[in-house]
Amino acid sequence: MFTNLEHLGLAVQDLEAATTLYTALLGLAPYKRETVESEGVDTVFFQVGGSKIELLGGTTPDSAITKFVAKKGEGIHHVAFEVDDIRAEMQRLRAEGFTLLNEEPKRGADNKLVCFVHPKSAHGVLVELCQSIKE
Amino acid sequence: MFTNLEHLGLAVQDLEAATTLYTALLGLAPYKRETVESEGVDTVFFQVGGSKIELLGGTTPDSAITKFVAKKGEGIHHVAFEVDDIRAEMQRLRAEGFTLLNEEPKRGADNKLVCFVHPKSAHGVLVELCQSIKE
Repeated sequence: MFTNLEHLGLAVQDLEAATTLYTALLGLAPYKRETVESEGVDTVFFQVGGSKIELLGGTTPDSAITKFVAKKGEGIHHVAFEVDDIRAEMQRLRAEGFTLLNEEPKRGADNKLVCFVHPKSAHGVLVELCQSIKE
Repeated sequence: MFTNLEHLGLAVQDLEAATTLYTALLGLAPYKRETVESEGVDTVFFQVGGSKIELLGGTTPDSAITKFVAKKGEGIHHVAFEVDDIRAEMQRLRAEGFTLLNEEPKRGADNKLVCFVHPKSAHGVLVELCQSIKE
């Protein structure tokens, strides 16, 4: 089950400039910074009500974020929904005919298991499923 | 104050096809359809936790949604944040140097007063402020 719009990921060119700007826009400071080396991204998180805004800056030329910004410019990169059982949702979506970008859940930022749905499956929107990892 | 990620607006070519697809993706049915004639859009709303997904289909050639889809293809169009006092937030953002797309709050879908922040002010993201109208 999809239980929450967990976060919105924004791809930016200059993470420091974007952090300053979103601090002014949202009227609040970020609560966390995290580097995800496997994805070549630095992230900055803001909490707004029950959802988060995740600023994403690419750290390598091969990073999906670096490529996205080069191709499309800065903007909204993906929307992530919290699910109660990521493997069950992946199985349900495959059965519905959606194309998933990873076969198994992988470890993402913010202590989550994540899986992406191909944007061609979802009218141009890159959808992430995520489930918090219970320690 | 920004109190919630109220909704995410998705611009689509074929609203009926997108409604069928998002019903399958989210695993739930839409709770509302609404036409906003002044904006030339038909809308379909889904509720996920405390946030909404708003599918937007243009109904006229001049609609901002029709133009967006023609220029950029289907995808995420805007993110809307609920604020507690839209006029106070508009004044605060102007003072911070943000460019607003409307001088006064205007009536949007879903019984809201709304105002948009120019995407050039926000690293390529079209940001909407909204406040529920109390009857």
